[in-house]
Amino acid sequence: MSGREFFTARTVSAALAGFRPARRTTVESVPLELALHRVPAADVAAPGALPGFAKSTVDGYAVRAADTYGASEGLPSYLELAGVVRMGRAPAVAVAPGGCVAMPTGGVLPGGADAVVMVEYTAETMAGTIEVTRPVAPGGGLVRADEDVAAGGMLVPAGRPLRAPDLGLLAAAGVREVRVHARPRVAIVSTGDEVVPPSTRTLAAGQVRDATASALAGLVTDAGGDPVIVGIVPDDGPALQATLRAAIADADLVVVSAGSSVGARDETAGAVSALGQIWCHGLTIKPGKPTLLAECSGVPVIGLPGNPLSALVVFGLVGVPVVWQLAGCSTPPPQPSTRARLSRQLPSAAGRLDVVQVTVRDGVAEPLFGPSALLSVLTRADGYAVVPEADTGLASGTDVDVTLYR
Amino acid sequence: MSGREFFTARTVSAALAGFRPARRTTVESVPLELALHRVPAADVAAPGALPGFAKSTVDGYAVRAADTYGASEGLPSYLELAGVVRMGRAPAVAVAPGGCVAMPTGGVLPGGADAVVMVEYTAETMAGTIEVTRPVAPGGGLVRADEDVAAGGMLVPAGRPLRAPDLGLLAAAGVREVRVHARPRVAIVSTGDEVVPPSTRTLAAGQVRDATASALAGLVTDAGGDPVIVGIVPDDGPALQATLRAAIADADLVVVSAGSSVGARDETAGAVSALGQIWCHGLTIKPGKPTLLAECSGVPVIGLPGNPLSALVVFGLVGVPVVWQLAGCSTPPPQPSTRARLSRQLPSAAGRLDVVQVTVRDGVAEPLFGPSALLSVLTRADGYAVVPEADTGLASGTDVDVTLYR
Repeated sequence: MSGREFFTARTVSAALAGFRPARRTTVESVPLELALHRVPAADVAAPGALPGFAKSTVDGYAVRAADTYGASEGLPSYLELAGVVRMGRAPAVAVAPGGCVAMPTGGVLPGGADAVVMVEYTAETMAGTIEVTRPVAPGGGLVRADEDVAAGGMLVPAGRPLRAPDLGLLAAAGVREVRVHARPRVAIVSTGDEVVPPSTRTLAAGQVRDATASALAGLVTDAGGDPVIVGIVPDDGPALQATLRAAIADADLVVVSAGSSVGARDETAGAVSALGQIWCHGLTIKPGKPTLLAECSGVPVIGLPGNPLSALVVFGLVGVPVVWQLAGCSTPPPQPSTRARLSRQLPSAAGRLDVVQVTVRDGVAEPLFGPSALLSVLTRADGYAVVPEADTGLASGTDVDVTLYR
Repeated sequence: MSGREFFTARTVSAALAGFRPARRTTVESVPLELALHRVPAADVAAPGALPGFAKSTVDGYAVRAADTYGASEGLPSYLELAGVVRMGRAPAVAVAPGGCVAMPTGGVLPGGADAVVMVEYTAETMAGTIEVTRPVAPGGGLVRADEDVAAGGMLVPAGRPLRAPDLGLLAAAGVREVRVHARPRVAIVSTGDEVVPPSTRTLAAGQVRDATASALAGLVTDAGGDPVIVGIVPDDGPALQATLRAAIADADLVVVSAGSSVGARDETAGAVSALGQIWCHGLTIKPGKPTLLAECSGVPVIGLPGNPLSALVVFGLVGVPVVWQLAGCSTPPPQPSTRARLSRQLPSAAGRLDVVQVTVRDGVAEPLFGPSALLSVLTRADGYAVVPEADTGLASGTDVDVTLYR
């Protein structure tokens, strides 16, 4: 991030490529039960090999593979049954040439054996003698002691949020705690003389309850962050600057949802520029143009448009990847999407990214038009389509990618 | 769910269509801050109209639209400036014929006005006189008092998990608590004489730590459920039956990860059939065939295969939708996916759904083969592709849908 270019409008793709704070959250140990979706700070190595012993993957008989070569329905091999392996126990017997040991799936391969023949290709024709009607190759019907993960091998990589199966593999390896990046603390500051807390029971004329802070907190939580709702600051330079200074000292990312008026936006820009360097003022996106991206004392600051819909669109596109990056995840988890046919034309302007809320039914994307002052457009949408910066619009009937909300 | 058909193998699509428990969790009130992804039990109605007042969506001047008709650069309309609307305040003046009032975005439309002309199409050529160079239609530059949501209108629907913007709309409406379905309690029972708790420091020969329970807990959490890890039960009919009976009395869904051996699976089937009705025993899926679906005293019971990989594949496909249904959500949130080209052939058998773990790089899906005894196949995958039941395989180079993990 360079702080040289003041008050420059940027494209969303430039912001995604360039507004990438170097800051990372601290590292902490969390127990496995609380590690879902947390981001490991380093690759986690296996303390020992997994599964840790050569293990049957079928129900059948442990054998020396060579003893089954040439076996067929017409000319079976006959092996002497030396014993049985019990689940969760060390084998009591080994497999000698011409011998075999009965095996459950998951049992420990006895000494001397190098394969397990499936029970389906065997018969106990006489007590103590097993007839084998199909050959098995060495290594057949089993996994090696280190086939899942070798000792010291990587269980899970750094930088990728932990998924449910990762927790299983870590549990299998006996790992009880993981070193992960702390959840990024995201301070959410609301401004605007018209904005009052959501707890306000009765509104005076012209007042609106703060919708953006609650919704932003949800987006931050979804991105693995820890939202801190700072509250509402009046459209007043010194008050806003004091609040921002405290937020910057405390948080990993500061988000300001500006009031909707030009005056409120100007106050925000003034306060931010007094505390750090503005990287971009104005994004070539609709809705969301009056967006401000800055860095103050190493902490990224995002100034969002006053309309809740615009603010949430911009934060979803530009803010969410920053929250992940702060936790050491450079590629946010994928989002659901679908292909759908546009039910009508989408006008746009070249050089501008248009984000259009849509419903999707039976493969048809129906744009929800309406002023960006209407938050219900966003809650009624199934997802959004974009008109790329290079296009001046999309014709009705065009197939588009719709990013779906979940 | 009919309990008539015992020990029937089913397809996954039949299970998704037919194994839909009628049970729903109880309803509870939660504060908005804790309502993200919770499922409303009923539509939430707006206590009043939103935004609640006719509101400017631009910076400009409130006017009577008729006063601007025919205005142009060459022949502007001239309006008398009667005052200014302040953010968050009731207007102190009304708009008389031939008059106008200065408006910030988000301000309350004064009496007498029916439109707001954007400041870009105006100039204050003389103090107190505003020149308008473009006509505005009635309703232009504003939103009506009930344009976002009418009083009594629906803020958020029942049955759809709450998303971040929903929280914003609810906050704007002054809704502080939401009636949602309780998180489904999902009891996770592990069986298998070889299985020991993940906290076991040193393994004896043949022992494996319980990987499945930790991973299932993660999948349950992702599906909005509340995982309850019951622990490990020996492969012993009476012990298993007692544990299952207690779990069924306590939980909304019981999941049993069977031991990997045939013996352990038989014990599970026996215990479940003693407590309720088996709906299906065997799914036509690979991996995951030895799956059992049952209902015991109105509680769905899912018996999973012993291999962790198979268990997680089946639970993701068949169990996760059940968790959502229990909370009143009939259509689980969409999953991320991508189209990719198969790097190699995928063999299958007709009538069987094959679930193949893949990595995806540069649009190419590379299958990760390996026995389903290897959990690392799942942790290394970016997602999975399926060979549908009707196909006997997919040729190398085929474009497939890959469901991506997140």
